[in-house]
Parts: sequence; structure tokens; C-alpha cells
Amino acid sequence: MYFPPVEEQILHLKSGVQEIIPEEELRAKLEQAVKTGKPLTVKLGCDPSRPDLHLGHAVVLRKLRQFQDFGHEIVLIVGDFTGMIGDASGRSKMRPALSLEETRRNGETYFQQASKILLPERIKIVYNSQWLGKLSFEDVVRLAGKTTVARMLERDDFAGRYARGDAIGIHEFLYPLAQAQDSVEIKADIELGGTDQKFNLLMGRSVQKSVGQVPQVCITLPILEGLDGAEKMSKSLDNYIGITESSETMYGKILSIPDTLIYRYFELASDEMVNELPALKKLSSEAPRDAKHRLAFSITRLYHGAKQAREASEYFERTVIRKEIPENIPSFRPELEDPVGLLNLLTVSGLTPSNGAARRLVEQGAVSIDGQKVTDSRLTLDISASAPFLIKVGKRRFVRIVR
Amino acid sequence: MYFPPVEEQILHLKSGVQEIIPEEELRAKLEQAVKTGKPLTVKLGCDPSRPDLHLGHAVVLRKLRQFQDFGHEIVLIVGDFTGMIGDASGRSKMRPALSLEETRRNGETYFQQASKILLPERIKIVYNSQWLGKLSFEDVVRLAGKTTVARMLERDDFAGRYARGDAIGIHEFLYPLAQAQDSVEIKADIELGGTDQKFNLLMGRSVQKSVGQVPQVCITLPILEGLDGAEKMSKSLDNYIGITESSETMYGKILSIPDTLIYRYFELASDEMVNELPALKKLSSEAPRDAKHRLAFSITRLYHGAKQAREASEYFERTVIRKEIPENIPSFRPELEDPVGLLNLLTVSGLTPSNGAARRLVEQGAVSIDGQKVTDSRLTLDISASAPFLIKVGKRRFVRIVR
Repeated sequence: MYFPPVEEQILHLKSGVQEIIPEEELRAKLEQAVKTGKPLTVKLGCDPSRPDLHLGHAVVLRKLRQFQDFGHEIVLIVGDFTGMIGDASGRSKMRPALSLEETRRNGETYFQQASKILLPERIKIVYNSQWLGKLSFEDVVRLAGKTTVARMLERDDFAGRYARGDAIGIHEFLYPLAQAQDSVEIKADIELGGTDQKFNLLMGRSVQKSVGQVPQVCITLPILEGLDGAEKMSKSLDNYIGITESSETMYGKILSIPDTLIYRYFELASDEMVNELPALKKLSSEAPRDAKHRLAFSITRLYHGAKQAREASEYFERTVIRKEIPENIPSFRPELEDPVGLLNLLTVSGLTPSNGAARRLVEQGAVSIDGQKVTDSRLTLDISASAPFLIKVGKRRFVRIVR
Repeated sequence: MYFPPVEEQILHLKSGVQEIIPEEELRAKLEQAVKTGKPLTVKLGCDPSRPDLHLGHAVVLRKLRQFQDFGHEIVLIVGDFTGMIGDASGRSKMRPALSLEETRRNGETYFQQASKILLPERIKIVYNSQWLGKLSFEDVVRLAGKTTVARMLERDDFAGRYARGDAIGIHEFLYPLAQAQDSVEIKADIELGGTDQKFNLLMGRSVQKSVGQVPQVCITLPILEGLDGAEKMSKSLDNYIGITESSETMYGKILSIPDTLIYRYFELASDEMVNELPALKKLSSEAPRDAKHRLAFSITRLYHGAKQAREASEYFERTVIRKEIPENIPSFRPELEDPVGLLNLLTVSGLTPSNGAARRLVEQGAVSIDGQKVTDSRLTLDISASAPFLIKVGKRRFVRIVR
């Protein structure tokens, strides 16, 4: 196996990451790989309860892709073991237990979506129930003996919850250890994760050491903010751009981000070359509108190719720029079965307070869809076929309906 | 099955206990037993790493015996599961892992010793590895989900160690849950333990509730102080009276307790009747020397019968009282292979600083055994055959050698 020179690998691998713990061990492992011709094993843990990937996930996946490009091996670990347990405390209904079939299906979905970024023929996908499901109580006791309560309570979220007096189930202390065991099982050389995973990544390092393995290098990546510019991108906050969303939706959502995020998205979510970044930083602050279109084009091309990115760009020029519709229009994805009644859609999307009010506005001619006035209050729409489209109510209220 | 009236049972069962949690449930369970003729299941957990029972253990065992006398069923749970794991953190060599054979052998020893107090034909003895060994990681996660970190850190010893910054291994949080699972498995109606076990007993109650069982009543008993009158009786502190020790050793050790302990031993370690206690309290404070002999006789009779208790009493009258040897002579059990050289024995028992000093003292005629002067420094002794005996060095230094 041929690997690029270590310094070249390091230069690219370092770009955009938050921390490499410790960097000298990464260098040593890369040197070893070059010397022996044996690729490194790079681990990523995936949550099978949320198989829909968005640009936030893509930050880590794109770093994994770099490792692939340099000849290393990627192992995606689907955390089906914990997924199948659900909420062990029984206190919350937020985490229903998944069946074996569901976790496999979600794992498959994850793999297919991740294949938009990774080289699919060079991904190894494994389910951790395979080994965690075989651990006995005795094994668990030994694993649990490898760390302490004080150490565990150092983890940011545990520390906060403990300080606030919020309940932390004892089983929650077992999950980081389970993830650490995953590193032992696949003999991970490197593990990647968001900065919020740092503690778990280090736990893997520590448990590997305690069983006599060469410990993994931990690489953390920044957490991408969502469309609101405030919270972390997440499906449950509905501030996300899914990597399987249509080119128009993706393009339109990127146009809706606050100006302060433009450069960050260039850095973490686009495939612009490292040497282009200074110029893009300048553009983002001096001409945010142009920068945003460049960003939208760049990211859309990444997931849909140049042709569709161009078409999306033209669509927005047509509907948004020429007709002077404001750029920062909220997107709304109605959870309704097709076909959807127009009045109902107006109400659930928040444009009108009630179906009665919606009917009056439609009948007064105050409602248009993609610039076409609609006056039939019995109109039904097929969202899966016709979204994205723009609904306007009165002079100033807009919502982009997406699917 | 016939049971004595509930009020009579309660009267005796309450005597000498620290807490009954909650008492009204104990009453209800006893009433249920009388009504249905079905005996209660009374649980005691035993530590198989310390199979040598002493009067401290006997406090709880004697309460169990009362339950047997009232017709209830005793289940001794040998905690071989945790015993076989040893120290999971690997930090300490204090808790070597026991093999299956060792735990079985220790369990057997425990049973035989406990049979000096309990009715052996009505003891059920079970090993918790039987069910705990079958738990999967998933089962452990579910069990661990039944309690919280904050709750666990309320346990006295955890609270103290956490406050002092001493390490608490995560696996230590699993042991109280394992004991709680024991209660679930045998469907315990009542669990007994020392006051230091209160937390674990309550954990059993709580886990039983969470799986829909009628929760056990927890009965705690005071912790008996050892011969020093300060620390809890324990083999490792060498301040104990083993229930299998010879009648002379037992009698002699009881004579060596401080006066402040006399009444407490009457209350917790003898079988004096409840209605005798007030008189014994008076005797203990007014004539401690007489009280101590009565106590020594009473406890020795309990484990060795009246005849041997009388012989022990005569032995002490002969060697101690008539020859005006002080009563509070320290006992020493040398860990030496027979035969033991006299000089060596003098040094290891702390009577002389070195074998050289011992030789000089023997040759000077300053050493006697049971009142007989010894002058041959090459003398060897067979302790297993001849102990207990009294060594005197000079005018004031005494040690009682016991086996």
C-alpha cells in the first residue's frame, strides 16, 4: 500500500480539527504505516437511532474521507447495543428501544448516506452488539473497574447534571465504557468525533492502555452550528441541512443562514481547498450575499454534482433574486400526508392562525404560491411531488415549504 | 406450619436490633405468614472471602436463629460472584480473586460454622454466581438503570471517599445492585445485616419494588466492637473472638475486654434472656470482674456447652486468679509452622526485641511458661498441641499464646 508522505498527510488532517490528542502519536502512527505499508484503523461511532445525516455529521465524515484518500481503513461502529436497550431507567419515553431489525435498517441507511461522502467500497461497518452482547456481568465489572466515579463525573454533561441535582442513572456510566470497549475490539489506531465526544474518545484510549493495546489517537472536530446560527445543528431542533435533501432545498437553506456563519460553513462544510480559505474569509465579510451564493453552490455541488447545483442556483435567481423576495425565508416541512389541503397547510406552517382565517385570506386573493395567486380554498397540494415552493401571504409573510 | 402469635414474634425479633424498615410491613408479613401458614424467606448475604466467623457475625446469625425458631426460612447467600472477581480495578492486591473451588470451600466452612448458631437442617445455602453469572451486559444496564449516581453517593462510605477525593471504581457501584438482584432472585421477605449494610439492604428493597415484587423488610443489627473496645470486631484487626476458637481461648479473650463492653456483649453476644438483662447491667457496672466471668462462661457455654465452659473457667481460676496473674493479658496467635523455636516465638510475639535478647533472657532464667521456668534456649514448642499457654518474661511482661 502506498501512503503520501507523513508531512503531507498531517498538513491536511490537521486542517479544521479542534484537537489531536496527542499529535506526536498521530505522527508516529502515520510513520509506522508508511514504513510497514499497513494502513491505520480509523474508528467512528454512529448512533443508529438517528440515521438521517446532516452537514453536522458531514464535518467528521469528511475528515474520515481524508483518511481514506490517504489509504487508511475506516471502521464505522453502529452503536446498536445501546440502541436496543433504549432508556434503561424507564423514566423517559424519549429513547424507545430499537429492535434488531430497526438497528440493522438504520445502520444500512447510515451507510448509504455516508457513502455520499466516503468511498463505500472501503468502509467496514460493524455492529457493536456483536461483542457487547456477549459480555457477562463479570466482564462488565472488570471493564467498570477501569475507571472511577470522579473521573466519570468530570464529563461536561455529567458534571452539569450532577451539580444541578438532575438524576444520572448508573447505567449511563456504562455507555462510555461500552464505547471504549469498541475501540479495544477493533484495535482502533485513531478515533474521530465531535468535541462533545472528547471524553468518550479519551476513555477508549485509557481502556485500550489498560488491556495492553497501543492507545488510539483522539481527533475531535468542531460542532457545526445549525441554520439559526446559535444551536448545534440537529434534526430535533429543525435547524439542519440533511445530506440527502434535494438540491433546491439544500441551496435555499444555505441562503437562509446568518452572515456570521458563512465562513464557518466554508471551513467545515464545503470542499473548498485550504489555500482558498483566506480569500473566502474576506469575501464572507465584505460581500456576504455573494459569499452565501458561492457557499450554497459549493455545498450543493458536493452532494448533488455541478449540474444540479447550477439548476438550484438558477431556481433561486428566478424565484428569489429577480422577484425581490427576501432571502432569509424560513423553511417548513409539514408532517402531513399527501395530498394536503391548502388551508390546513397555511395554518400548520404558522402563516395563518386558523383554517377559517386562511379561507378568508385565500378568498381575498392575499395568498400566492411561487408567485401565482391562488383563490380556490379547496385546493390540495402534493408536497412530495411539488416542494420546494414558496407561499406568500399578504405582503410580507413567506414560508418555503420543503420536503 | 404453626407460628407463634405475631405480637410474641415481634417482641423477640425487635430485641437488640437497630432498625426495622418499616416495622408495620414486618408486622403485615408476619400476619400473612400466620394466616396462610407459609413461612417468610429471610435473607442473609455472606462474604465468602472471610469464612471465619466471630462474635460480630454471630449478632446477626443469632437474630436469624430467632426467625428459624419462629418457623421461618433462612436463605444464606454466599456472595461468590463478587468474590471470584476480586479487585476489579487491579489497583490493590488486598482482594485476590477466588476460584470456584475456594468459594465453594469457604461457603461450606461458613455453613459449618454458622451451624453452631443456626438449625443446620433448616438453612438453604445458595451461591449468587448461579444467577449473577448469567446476567448479560444488557441485563446489567437495565439493573444499573434502576438507581442514580446521587443515590449511590449517599452511601456513607462512598460519600466519605468521594469527599476525600479517594478513588471509587465504577464497578463498586455495581456490587450493591448485585446484592439487590439477589433479593429479587430469592424473593426475600426480610433481609438482615449490620448497620453498615443498611444502604445495600434498602437497595434490595428498591430494586424489588421496581420489578413488581413486594419489597423486603430491612432489619439492621448493631456492629459489635472488638476486644479493644474501640474498633469493630474484625479478623484483620485481630480484635476478634472466633466462634470456633477453643473454649479456653474464648473464655480468656472475653476476660480481656474492657469493662465498658461487658454489658454490650451480654446484650448482643450472649444468650441471656431478655428479662435478665437489667440485673446484668447492674452487675456489669458494680462488679465488673464477676460480670466478666459470668459473661465469659455464658458465651463459652453457647459455643462449647456447659462442661467445657466450666473447665475453661477452672483453668483461668488456676492460672490467673490463684497465681495473681493480671487478667488483661494480650493473646497472640503465631503464624508459624510447628515446631516453633522458643527464641523465635518470644521475638515474633513481641516479648523480646530480637532472638539474641531472647537467648540472654532465657539463659538468665527470666522466662517461664505456665509458671514453669525454662532455661534451654534451644527448646521447641508444638503450639497446635499445647496452646493456650502463658509466657512470662521478667516480672511484668505476659503473652497468652493461643492457636
